[in-house]
Amino acid sequence: MSHNTFGHLFRVTTFGESHGPAIGCIVDGCPPNIPLTADHIQAFLDKRRPGQSRFTTQRQEPDQVRIMSGVFEDERTGGPVTTGTPIMLMIENVDQRSKDYADIRDKFRPGHADFTYQAKYGVRDYKGGGRSSARETAARVAAGAIARKIVPGVTIRGALIQMGSHKIDRTNWDWTEVDRNPFFTPDARAAKSFEEYLDGIRKSGSSCGAVIEVTASGVPAGWGAPIYAKLDQELAAAMMSINAVKGVEIGAGFASAALSGEQNADEIRMHHGKPEFLSNHAGGILGGISTGQDIVVRFAVKPTSSILSTRKTVTSGGEETDVMTKGRHDPCVGIRAVPVGEAMMAIVLADQFLRHRGQVG
Amino acid sequence: MSHNTFGHLFRVTTFGESHGPAIGCIVDGCPPNIPLTADHIQAFLDKRRPGQSRFTTQRQEPDQVRIMSGVFEDERTGGPVTTGTPIMLMIENVDQRSKDYADIRDKFRPGHADFTYQAKYGVRDYKGGGRSSARETAARVAAGAIARKIVPGVTIRGALIQMGSHKIDRTNWDWTEVDRNPFFTPDARAAKSFEEYLDGIRKSGSSCGAVIEVTASGVPAGWGAPIYAKLDQELAAAMMSINAVKGVEIGAGFASAALSGEQNADEIRMHHGKPEFLSNHAGGILGGISTGQDIVVRFAVKPTSSILSTRKTVTSGGEETDVMTKGRHDPCVGIRAVPVGEAMMAIVLADQFLRHRGQVG
Amino acid sequence: MSHNTFGHLFRVTTFGESHGPAIGCIVDGCPPNIPLTADHIQAFLDKRRPGQSRFTTQRQEPDQVRIMSGVFEDERTGGPVTTGTPIMLMIENVDQRSKDYADIRDKFRPGHADFTYQAKYGVRDYKGGGRSSARETAARVAAGAIARKIVPGVTIRGALIQMGSHKIDRTNWDWTEVDRNPFFTPDARAAKSFEEYLDGIRKSGSSCGAVIEVTASGVPAGWGAPIYAKLDQELAAAMMSINAVKGVEIGAGFASAALSGEQNADEIRMHHGKPEFLSNHAGGILGGISTGQDIVVRFAVKPTSSILSTRKTVTSGGEETDVMTKGRHDPCVGIRAVPVGEAMMAIVLADQFLRHRGQVG
Amino acid sequence: MSHNTFGHLFRVTTFGESHGPAIGCIVDGCPPNIPLTADHIQAFLDKRRPGQSRFTTQRQEPDQVRIMSGVFEDERTGGPVTTGTPIMLMIENVDQRSKDYADIRDKFRPGHADFTYQAKYGVRDYKGGGRSSARETAARVAAGAIARKIVPGVTIRGALIQMGSHKIDRTNWDWTEVDRNPFFTPDARAAKSFEEYLDGIRKSGSSCGAVIEVTASGVPAGWGAPIYAKLDQELAAAMMSINAVKGVEIGAGFASAALSGEQNADEIRMHHGKPEFLSNHAGGILGGISTGQDIVVRFAVKPTSSILSTRKTVTSGGEETDVMTKGRHDPCVGIRAVPVGEAMMAIVLADQFLRHRGQVG
Repeated sequence: MSHNTFGHLFRVTTFGESHGPAIGCIVDGCPPNIPLTADHIQAFLDKRRPGQSRFTTQRQEPDQVRIMSGVFEDERTGGPVTTGTPIMLMIENVDQRSKDYADIRDKFRPGHADFTYQAKYGVRDYKGGGRSSARETAARVAAGAIARKIVPGVTIRGALIQMGSHKIDRTNWDWTEVDRNPFFTPDARAAKSFEEYLDGIRKSGSSCGAVIEVTASGVPAGWGAPIYAKLDQELAAAMMSINAVKGVEIGAGFASAALSGEQNADEIRMHHGKPEFLSNHAGGILGGISTGQDIVVRFAVKPTSSILSTRKTVTSGGEETDVMTKGRHDPCVGIRAVPVGEAMMAIVLADQFLRHRGQVG
Repeated sequence: MSHNTFGHLFRVTTFGESHGPAIGCIVDGCPPNIPLTADHIQAFLDKRRPGQSRFTTQRQEPDQVRIMSGVFEDERTGGPVTTGTPIMLMIENVDQRSKDYADIRDKFRPGHADFTYQAKYGVRDYKGGGRSSARETAARVAAGAIARKIVPGVTIRGALIQMGSHKIDRTNWDWTEVDRNPFFTPDARAAKSFEEYLDGIRKSGSSCGAVIEVTASGVPAGWGAPIYAKLDQELAAAMMSINAVKGVEIGAGFASAALSGEQNADEIRMHHGKPEFLSNHAGGILGGISTGQDIVVRFAVKPTSSILSTRKTVTSGGEETDVMTKGRHDPCVGIRAVPVGEAMMAIVLADQFLRHRGQVG
Repeated sequence: MSHNTFGHLFRVTTFGESHGPAIGCIVDGCPPNIPLTADHIQAFLDKRRPGQSRFTTQRQEPDQVRIMSGVFEDERTGGPVTTGTPIMLMIENVDQRSKDYADIRDKFRPGHADFTYQAKYGVRDYKGGGRSSARETAARVAAGAIARKIVPGVTIRGALIQMGSHKIDRTNWDWTEVDRNPFFTPDARAAKSFEEYLDGIRKSGSSCGAVIEVTASGVPAGWGAPIYAKLDQELAAAMMSINAVKGVEIGAGFASAALSGEQNADEIRMHHGKPEFLSNHAGGILGGISTGQDIVVRFAVKPTSSILSTRKTVTSGGEETDVMTKGRHDPCVGIRAVPVGEAMMAIVLADQFLRHRGQVG
Repeated sequence: MSHNTFGHLFRVTTFGESHGPAIGCIVDGCPPNIPLTADHIQAFLDKRRPGQSRFTTQRQEPDQVRIMSGVFEDERTGGPVTTGTPIMLMIENVDQRSKDYADIRDKFRPGHADFTYQAKYGVRDYKGGGRSSARETAARVAAGAIARKIVPGVTIRGALIQMGSHKIDRTNWDWTEVDRNPFFTPDARAAKSFEEYLDGIRKSGSSCGAVIEVTASGVPAGWGAPIYAKLDQELAAAMMSINAVKGVEIGAGFASAALSGEQNADEIRMHHGKPEFLSNHAGGILGGISTGQDIVVRFAVKPTSSILSTRKTVTSGGEETDVMTKGRHDPCVGIRAVPVGEAMMAIVLADQFLRHRGQVG
């Protein structure tokens, strides 16, 4: 977790800008002998890929991933496998529209990282947001596809549970619905209303935020580590590192502040010879270590900063002016954050699993 | 941020259990020539120290800190200063009540880390919670006192803004109130109602949660770093690593999901020759880098798991039973989380400042 | 320095196998606003490139580097500069001869990493040595070219000072000679005898070792850090990480064991108002921190393991057999280790400089 | 391996100055359930303890270690065991002679770190060398005692093989001799001549260097990791981080430069159903990964810089002067480097073993 690397034993280092030749990552520390093809990774990238419905940016990026190292196919054994050496994944940028960037070259778009990159580095790649573009998250999704293979008994699923101020009805929750609507939402009814709502947002050139929930089932008790490698801490770091995320919570989260100690403490009984919790306010984590229950994390995504309204800003030269973000954008960037959140969950779990195995065996 | 170390250039490694001989930390990477005495650190520890009101645990710990290394006093120059070498801070445990631990030795207290430590390590120090005790946070507060000295122009302040379901009225916010009530709350009126509320909780042997807000003023634009060393990411990790914290948010946080893009994007004007934002939904961070506005982070603390009610649980041998946590405890552990949150803010900022200076000069 | 990453603030993560599609690296933590083009990097790669004389492997690799991210050219300011974001450098593999690998697929070549990779991972890319090939060092040289730009007042030079058992005469040392012979040796006379000697080695299908010396002039006093980030420690790690290196020494090195305390302690006088050492047995480093004198490191490279003689070995199936390494190889791989050693010196110094600036300002 | 921390999964962070109240370390990442008492650690510290013969410094330090955290004794199970949490080890300084430091406060002793610490930090603890004192190595030895417990099948042994210019006769090598003479040398005859030689050195107030060899037997094939976590790389870093070490080599080391490829490549045969190497020029490491043979590392220790002769130096004010180091010192600091080298070997192996288990299982 330093600059452009996430993880300790399972490490993901990403590179690339929105309008450079390519983006991608090096995945280091992957165990050997895991079957791996580009197709496996591609399936996850396709979920995040833009331009699949009218509700995401119309930028056309095939997001075709190539595995440049770290796998080997011995003709006798059939099928490429990981070798334990670094896996470089590369996705070439294709649809960098050659538009005129003069407008945003010198103006700081409110809500974007334009101002802060300039303040920090004294230079910035202003084309398409450069390094601060959400395109970087494609590399996370690719790495996450590998991470999933390291924790084979674990099922990781994400869902959009709030769009703008509209929340789903959790009693309608149906995981199979998630893949049936363009919002990755598990509530079929909500999906309908989201459609109408987001069409309105889209047409008015505005944007809205979202809340995403990601769960991991099948994580055994014992992953995670006190004190500064807590599972919830690393999940918080992982999710907060995603573009536009402004809040993260585990289990009951912020609502736990309003619970009594009696309500909050998940009681334990035996079930089929194993301890079982009667509730999961803890979100599957106690003392930074997994309990064996579902890991539950939620995060809030702010509304896309790219909007068609004119906003007050200043130029890099210090003059007051207005700016409007023309061009393609996601009216609700939270939608495509669902596969990204899943990927980050997978990466955290893979890394924690390997470290746990290292220390405890 | 690995196991028991937090930070990169400014690194804090903590040690110690609740009922061992001592707790403390090694602070590594501190710049040299900073005046430092135990008294300076003690002032912050005294804020966190238990037993100062009837609203915190009655364990009597003087929490007297000793500086064991890393400072030097040259008799000619007057006053001890840091030397750039590791500073070991030690706080001896004094009030380890010699009670009978038989009850919790074999029973997993719901909401505690008993079960997960046992699951992970196959052994646990069950006395007073061992390593998972909130006593560890004293070491953070001590390290935070040093961290503050590294970012001298920055003012870091924390406040309790919600207790149970009772929120303060933000229009009453007065920072000077924070030190006048035992709850570190900036709303004098709320302090009164908290008193009554918490007395009820305390007498019934129950507990309640809280929400804490920590702000840092005076942070220049440009601290923090994409992509996996984002300032908000590290603050999320820092706060989530505190015992009992279940949620973290930056600026508008979860509420930002319900804002429109127009509402959320903080507009910019010039003020006294410098860019100034007209609002601060971003909480002082864009793209993971500080904007120059106040850094604003909030975190939710779950209700203390130690309560006097009997709860269902199981033994380490797999038998169903009940457990009740006798003895001293904080009815609202969120109160003492205020100085801890401030300390973690200071540690994150000190580390980010040094890394920024390293890369950019 | 974990698995495939070297460095802390200036971090180099390499990827790629000898016969995969490409090799390269991500350079993270580079300061912004440094002019950087592929041509600058190429100049250093060309020094390391194979096939330039009859004394290195005849594999024909243009080693053409592409900068895939981390630089930006603003048409107004002229010339691409670093942006502070990760720089991905890629070198495509071109001359992967499609020979039959059947012979070494199942046989462990003595002196190679075949046996240990198989033992560790249970799988290995046996084509051209896979990840253990010296081709990986091209990525180091590329990263080193960037590192040099971070320490502009520092001059880093390497030289071959011993080939087989033949040592140069240090009184003949002339840095300008280094670029005039195919051995990077500073002794013109030795170059002549090396030529004859190595021709003999080459024709007989044998190989020989070498000793390389790398110096850095212009390093100010104060870089490096106790206790486990010592400048000499990191140089030792850097050089020992190069393929085939079996020994590293600083300054007087192993010879210092035979010196008396009087001989070894470099005395100090004033010179032009600055402290100056009267000798440099320390190799420019005391207590892990630079003294301001030349940094001097030497390392020993073992003879290339690929030789035309038949050697006893076993198969992966556990049968005794013989093996002979056919095909192209370097008779003295130490020659091409010179630019690699320079690159590692540059990387260590750049990283230490940034960390020093971080802690001390 | 950053500033005062060594290791990745098994991490040792040391603290303390020569004349401060205490020195010690935090050992983090230790597996749980390992029996551990202070007595076990003390046995190794006693080997390194000064004042045991006339050939080491006469400073009287009992070097009594206390375990301050990370172990737990459950009265039912008998005997304290590690809990997987950080183990803090503390050794109080006892014999800080209250001498007058005026002489070295302002003078830089040639060969010491005085000058470089001052240049780096602008301040230094000049009492007894402060942080740069070899007293820090006691913490390493203590940590090494724990590390040995993590790799139980491995035997780690060190020996002094050269004192000044006097080398042992390797045909006399007898490990049992090592504990029978005050020099940790395996050659009984050499021990005799060392005695006479060192008495001369000691009486004349001079000092001499040494070469130490440390071996580890029983390391299975497969520990270590390409490319920047090579076993030999980390051993080089470990040994070079020890005070006064100026050179490190693995296996044939520098001598390998003069071997032919035929001589150097260790051939392999089957032995009792397992591959066995017919020689060990590789020192048990190929491609950075262990071969299953003995790991062999040697390092050179320069002569102690503290000598009774007057040497030319300058003051911190820039005036030329002379300095003589009065007081207690080791005439051959290499002697006490033997247990330190063993400890560093143990620490590297423990860390590599845990990381190997993490990645490969």
